[in-house]
Amino acid sequence: MAETYETLLAHTARSMALDEVAGLLAWDQETVMPVDGGFQREEHAAALEEARHSRNTDPRIGEWLASLEGATLSPEAARNVELIRRRYTRATAVPADLSIAIARQTSAGQRVWAEARRTDDFNLFAPALTRIVELKREEAQHRRLGTGPLYDALLDGYEPGMTTATLTPLFERLRGPLADLRAEIAERGIASAKLKGHFPEKAQLAFAHALAEVFGYNLKAGRIDTAVHPFSSGSGRDVRITTRVAEDDPAGNIFSTIHEMGHAVYEQNIERSHNLQPIGAYASMGVHESQSRLFENQIGRSRAFAEYLYPAMREAFGDLCIDGPAALFAALNHVETGFIRTEADEVHYNLHVILRYNLEQDVIEGRLDVADLQDAWNQRFEQDFGRKVPSAAQGVLQDVHWSVGHFGYFPTYTLGNIYAGELFAAMQSALPDLDAEVARGDLTNALNWLHINIHRPGASLPPEDLVSRVIGRAPTEAPLISYLQAKFRGLYAT
Amino acid sequence: MAETYETLLAHTARSMALDEVAGLLAWDQETVMPVDGGFQREEHAAALEEARHSRNTDPRIGEWLASLEGATLSPEAARNVELIRRRYTRATAVPADLSIAIARQTSAGQRVWAEARRTDDFNLFAPALTRIVELKREEAQHRRLGTGPLYDALLDGYEPGMTTATLTPLFERLRGPLADLRAEIAERGIASAKLKGHFPEKAQLAFAHALAEVFGYNLKAGRIDTAVHPFSSGSGRDVRITTRVAEDDPAGNIFSTIHEMGHAVYEQNIERSHNLQPIGAYASMGVHESQSRLFENQIGRSRAFAEYLYPAMREAFGDLCIDGPAALFAALNHVETGFIRTEADEVHYNLHVILRYNLEQDVIEGRLDVADLQDAWNQRFEQDFGRKVPSAAQGVLQDVHWSVGHFGYFPTYTLGNIYAGELFAAMQSALPDLDAEVARGDLTNALNWLHINIHRPGASLPPEDLVSRVIGRAPTEAPLISYLQAKFRGLYAT
Repeated sequence: MAETYETLLAHTARSMALDEVAGLLAWDQETVMPVDGGFQREEHAAALEEARHSRNTDPRIGEWLASLEGATLSPEAARNVELIRRRYTRATAVPADLSIAIARQTSAGQRVWAEARRTDDFNLFAPALTRIVELKREEAQHRRLGTGPLYDALLDGYEPGMTTATLTPLFERLRGPLADLRAEIAERGIASAKLKGHFPEKAQLAFAHALAEVFGYNLKAGRIDTAVHPFSSGSGRDVRITTRVAEDDPAGNIFSTIHEMGHAVYEQNIERSHNLQPIGAYASMGVHESQSRLFENQIGRSRAFAEYLYPAMREAFGDLCIDGPAALFAALNHVETGFIRTEADEVHYNLHVILRYNLEQDVIEGRLDVADLQDAWNQRFEQDFGRKVPSAAQGVLQDVHWSVGHFGYFPTYTLGNIYAGELFAAMQSALPDLDAEVARGDLTNALNWLHINIHRPGASLPPEDLVSRVIGRAPTEAPLISYLQAKFRGLYAT
Repeated sequence: MAETYETLLAHTARSMALDEVAGLLAWDQETVMPVDGGFQREEHAAALEEARHSRNTDPRIGEWLASLEGATLSPEAARNVELIRRRYTRATAVPADLSIAIARQTSAGQRVWAEARRTDDFNLFAPALTRIVELKREEAQHRRLGTGPLYDALLDGYEPGMTTATLTPLFERLRGPLADLRAEIAERGIASAKLKGHFPEKAQLAFAHALAEVFGYNLKAGRIDTAVHPFSSGSGRDVRITTRVAEDDPAGNIFSTIHEMGHAVYEQNIERSHNLQPIGAYASMGVHESQSRLFENQIGRSRAFAEYLYPAMREAFGDLCIDGPAALFAALNHVETGFIRTEADEVHYNLHVILRYNLEQDVIEGRLDVADLQDAWNQRFEQDFGRKVPSAAQGVLQDVHWSVGHFGYFPTYTLGNIYAGELFAAMQSALPDLDAEVARGDLTNALNWLHINIHRPGASLPPEDLVSRVIGRAPTEAPLISYLQAKFRGLYAT
């Protein structure tokens, strides 16, 4: 029995290593690949997907799993077996031809999307996206249990066990107070000071590298590059992030960097002895996002961190046209209705996500054609945000996700914010000097708390249980709402 | 029959795509991978090797090949089948465990080698190399036909059909005249002007990128990075090169760049419709090297090209302390006994290679222990070059090849020089205005000649036949010797 378990685990480790290879190809494609390399990369992606699919559906896995049923295993081993069973079920649900077609089509899709975004032309992207949606619907049909929503079958790939039945009411409970808070601010709205000046790319990238020290991102096991869409990639000892630079806006670089470092620090600090075991992987995308958002917002955009950031930025960039930490705090939390999700303030951010969550459900459930997606986006945006979308690049084309087939991914962003609200409240209770530490740029205790409670455990518990264990009950939207109300009512009170 | 052939070809295409993925991992490891990423990369390399091995040894390939025996096929298809048969025989000769062990050990070996070279400590590398040699001997035992030399079985992996029985006398016929030429120059030796000054990395890399235009290297399907050991990697539309920069020596950068561009331009110009077919791959490493050396030496270090290079370098770097093209030509062809193969002049270069060729044969045939390799190297070097090796980094540790298990690769460098000698003579006959064109930096006709005669055909002919078809007889060392004598007797005549 112990031998069967070891065989199963070794087989899985090698499959997980191939997953990491696929991750490296994706990183390469978004950072360093020559522009004309895309055609060839589709062949690479398809070949690798076929190899992975053939490993992941190896019938011996089914036999090993069957022979382990009812076996007495350590809790760790039992959880590994549970996760391997999930992995196997997911892999065998989808025919090889389909998963190869998806790999090929999304590799092409990403290339077409980048070009469409560059030329601001949704029609260029629509045929590729239509094909991707067809393939993802087909995938969902293979994955779903019973007659539940197709979308749930895709959502489960990012947030194990989560369903729209849970998520939709949770999001709606969040949406009301956010809309109210937004209205309050719009009424009282004051112009806060803005960062002005020219911030050279080189200085911004140097600052990004310096932030690694503060946030505990190990650059000996990582690297920072620029890419169209910032992302984090890899696990263990090779976790890479990308960022973007606009020379008139250092905040965009700083906070996308801090955000991606939240992801990367999570991956770098999962229990090392569980490397290439299912329990040594991240818990879910929602938990992942909670780490990036907690870094970015609850810490990075806090009043306390402005005390650290202000002199550090002055040293790096010279005059900021900002009069001290309090003004910097206000500038970094300036609330304004913008078009781009990744640039949105905390009040608007989840409204962006919920828009995508609803639209992508409609597309996957067949209630909305891709041909009508741009119009639907623009209409819904105007309704939710009160502004007309000026261009596809600032609207429906802004995110990479759909081009790579990641339907069901967006809601994990808002779920991550909800988890971040819960976890930060718990961290504040546990660490009474947190504010003073953050103000000095000393995150030692905060990082340790996260390492112990979230990072190291990896997927040794289901995501909701992991969060519940830390906070002592099931997670809700309440702490996130309280945090946002306190912060933004304070900022916009006068 | 046609259907079987198409099935076999499609299966092979996907396997070749996985080969390219492995190439990308290797590129990543040498250019952008975080320093601590190596441990994990061994797992990646092993997992990918297992996947490739399992594809490449798929018993269906044997069945497809058997059913195609005696079939009537187009010459192109027949050659593809012949190459697939070779591929299959090579893959099935070696047990999966062994090929995985080699992938893992060489991934680790490269990491250890880099550290040993950095700290100038052969003993740090010796245990890893010992293990690699054991594994490669084991591999050779599986590959060899009959009781021929183990080394031949490895050599065949780089130069299909070539044996030490052919190569050793060819090399010895080259060695005598080279030794004589060296002695002549040593007698007449005059100090030529040297490039002096500070040449910033940024300016050198900009110059390297500008050279791409001259040498027809398509940067939309390529990129130039820095690495410890310059190399070219990839094929088709994603062919990347690396180079190195020393700020007191622009020539090192320029000529390693031109060299690698020779490799890259070959790969970029193989008949595109043969992409991911065996006939669409390079002919052999010797032919590959003939392209890089012809670019680097017969063109790059020619008197004619100095006419182009001199003003271009002046513009890029300012004063060179060199008095015109003739003096630049002399400086770039300065003959001096150095320790580093990749920096060697054309007179010494093949002596470096023949040293390695002999030593690695001894190691593989079990006549020389790895523990004694450094001493053997140092002794042989002093004997052949008349100078004591000052450090392991400048001696036995200078090349990456052994650390990645590439035994049998070195002789293809000298074979490449011999082919380059033949091909350049043929090109000169075919293009009467070549010198004038090269002097203007206009390589259009030279590139076209290479595209037609060498690049496009890929592996549609065996390497020796490919060269023979161009020159009208079997290749010999004679044109290389004539070229070197004419060039260096001219330079060192007064």
